[in-house]
Amino acid sequence: MTNFAFDLLHRDPATRARIGKLVTPHGAIETPNFIFCATKAAMKACAADTLRDLGVDIILANTYHLLIQPGSKLVQDMGGLHDFMQWHGPMLTDSGGYQIFAMGHGSISAEIKRKAIPGRRRTLSQITEDGAYFQSYTDGKQIFLTPENSIQIQRELGADLIVMLDECTPFHVDKDYTARSMQMTHRWGDRCIAEFDRSDDGAQKLYGIVQGGVYQDLRREAAEYTASRPFFGTAVGGCLGDTKDAIIEIAGYAMPYVAPDRPVHLLGMGGIEEIIRGVALGIDTFDCVSPTRMARHGWALAPFEPMGRINIRNARYREDKSPLDDTLGNAASGAYSKAYIHHLFKAQEILGLQLLTQHNIAVMVRLMADIRAAIRAGTLPELARRYGVTI
Amino acid sequence: MTNFAFDLLHRDPATRARIGKLVTPHGAIETPNFIFCATKAAMKACAADTLRDLGVDIILANTYHLLIQPGSKLVQDMGGLHDFMQWHGPMLTDSGGYQIFAMGHGSISAEIKRKAIPGRRRTLSQITEDGAYFQSYTDGKQIFLTPENSIQIQRELGADLIVMLDECTPFHVDKDYTARSMQMTHRWGDRCIAEFDRSDDGAQKLYGIVQGGVYQDLRREAAEYTASRPFFGTAVGGCLGDTKDAIIEIAGYAMPYVAPDRPVHLLGMGGIEEIIRGVALGIDTFDCVSPTRMARHGWALAPFEPMGRINIRNARYREDKSPLDDTLGNAASGAYSKAYIHHLFKAQEILGLQLLTQHNIAVMVRLMADIRAAIRAGTLPELARRYGVTI
Repeated sequence: MTNFAFDLLHRDPATRARIGKLVTPHGAIETPNFIFCATKAAMKACAADTLRDLGVDIILANTYHLLIQPGSKLVQDMGGLHDFMQWHGPMLTDSGGYQIFAMGHGSISAEIKRKAIPGRRRTLSQITEDGAYFQSYTDGKQIFLTPENSIQIQRELGADLIVMLDECTPFHVDKDYTARSMQMTHRWGDRCIAEFDRSDDGAQKLYGIVQGGVYQDLRREAAEYTASRPFFGTAVGGCLGDTKDAIIEIAGYAMPYVAPDRPVHLLGMGGIEEIIRGVALGIDTFDCVSPTRMARHGWALAPFEPMGRINIRNARYREDKSPLDDTLGNAASGAYSKAYIHHLFKAQEILGLQLLTQHNIAVMVRLMADIRAAIRAGTLPELARRYGVTI
Repeated sequence: MTNFAFDLLHRDPATRARIGKLVTPHGAIETPNFIFCATKAAMKACAADTLRDLGVDIILANTYHLLIQPGSKLVQDMGGLHDFMQWHGPMLTDSGGYQIFAMGHGSISAEIKRKAIPGRRRTLSQITEDGAYFQSYTDGKQIFLTPENSIQIQRELGADLIVMLDECTPFHVDKDYTARSMQMTHRWGDRCIAEFDRSDDGAQKLYGIVQGGVYQDLRREAAEYTASRPFFGTAVGGCLGDTKDAIIEIAGYAMPYVAPDRPVHLLGMGGIEEIIRGVALGIDTFDCVSPTRMARHGWALAPFEPMGRINIRNARYREDKSPLDDTLGNAASGAYSKAYIHHLFKAQEILGLQLLTQHNIAVMVRLMADIRAAIRAGTLPELARRYGVTI
């Protein structure tokens, strides 16, 4: 029990932003912070020791993907995720629920854009009170995920912070479906707690999830549910709307009702604007694949440029001797010219992905450090303005 | 002129192996050594600072590829290859001749295996006394490479060591064609020297190339040609046969006749057996894409295993907790389990390529250090035996 703590060190008098210290058996981190996604027990194109060098504090891995390859039992036999991937800092796993939904129905972003995903197999077979049936995307094998085995699987994976199983409702469903789904998620939450308690050895802590779709009263009910149960932390999940304003509005429905002394995580949101506005609502941690996924598509985060990012493939960088950002203290951002990284993308060299991934990680690490400093100094509105965001 | 030197520090009394010190404006290296291939001004999946950490002393880049993307003029404008790719050690560029041949007629290995390469466009248009016409593989643009502009292009790229243009004759051609081709290559060599002298600013040195196919008297004639001209170093190139024995036999045809006080490079040969046997013939440097290309196909060099390599994709490594080799002093070889790297390949994670690339580089770095130590100690035959090679 003493291996874990969440201490609030400082509160911003002007907003609900706060500085916290989240203690785990693998180290303590300061919040607000960003949880980088090592989906399949690997950050794409970036080794764990490079993450440390870049100042990353905490990462997550995805239960759904690891269940399919290499399997949670194997990870356990290899000593758990920390040993397996040689990341010795704090780590979180999700419950698998989001991917069952996203890979079953199609991704949230595709849904928000009202797009079907051609050629993507619908892998979700059935959701019942017991749990969810889905098919492995590698071999088609039927897998049944329940609240209980989601906890067992996350025990085998061995991350510090684990998450209850939820049904992540599609964006388009009506309030009735959303309410019934949320209530089942709450029953799943209680089953997760029971299973967690049954096997609690003090090495992990459990987060509850706030669902409730786009509906203010359901979000409040879901937040109050999580606060009423002995979760260590609160995750705000599900479809949060189709614009940045909607995301922040809907997260804001829940925030007054979550347990105020627990860490709050906003699932899957990693835009600079959502982060800064989310911090002002009292959210402590964020995660998203977008910084590293953007890197693999040639996008370098450039928060102080008009668009907030540049595409290094653009011909304008062909002869640009300047580095991406030589104030970030890493070689990828400071030692190489834009022209070189442009060349790497034109020549389809893997090194291009590696360098932009490192750069985007460094930008996010700096953003979170800037945010913490601004909260301490009482200058969050100025920081927001500097990053081009209104809070 | 004083920026360059090649000093012979030690000769093995039992073989023709030797320890040399090759001095360039970007530092000195000891030979025998391995020149790692950063084909398009990038080691595939490995940044320059990682190369340094792994103990790499010298790299090469390929004129042909850089001419097509991003162009040698652009590299010059960006400060030359060293600045462009942030490699601050010794570097070599080839002349472009080999790739015109390999991408024009098909690769040597395909030719040796008597295979055509389906779908590969034949890009070589014409070879004349003046030079070689070929098409860019990116945009089909006609490019004309001559002895003079090969030197100019290599001046623009700015490597320390540059190489004369040659025609690399196909394996199947008869002695008459090989002899006529070799004689043209010698005339091209003289034109390269003239062009080199015209623009010599002391920042680069020129290697001659020994061609002559599989024919003993032609190899001798070619070696004597290079020795009679003021080249700084000697490169042994062209089709060296279809077996390890043939390669060593044909390289051996030339070695008694090359200039004994100049560094000798064996072009494109990087198997452990060819290296050890080549060292015993007096060859000082080697290069080959195979250690890093093998890595990207899942092969980890394992010189003390029966096959000399293992394929990490093999199911036998699925639950193998042991590292690839924890005596190599790098994380890729020593910190991660084979099971983890196996998982990365199964999950198609780029990180798998990165880690195996680093491992294979470290194996080659250790091989060359072991060879130098063995020459100094007079124990080259014991080293060869340890690596499973007969010299």
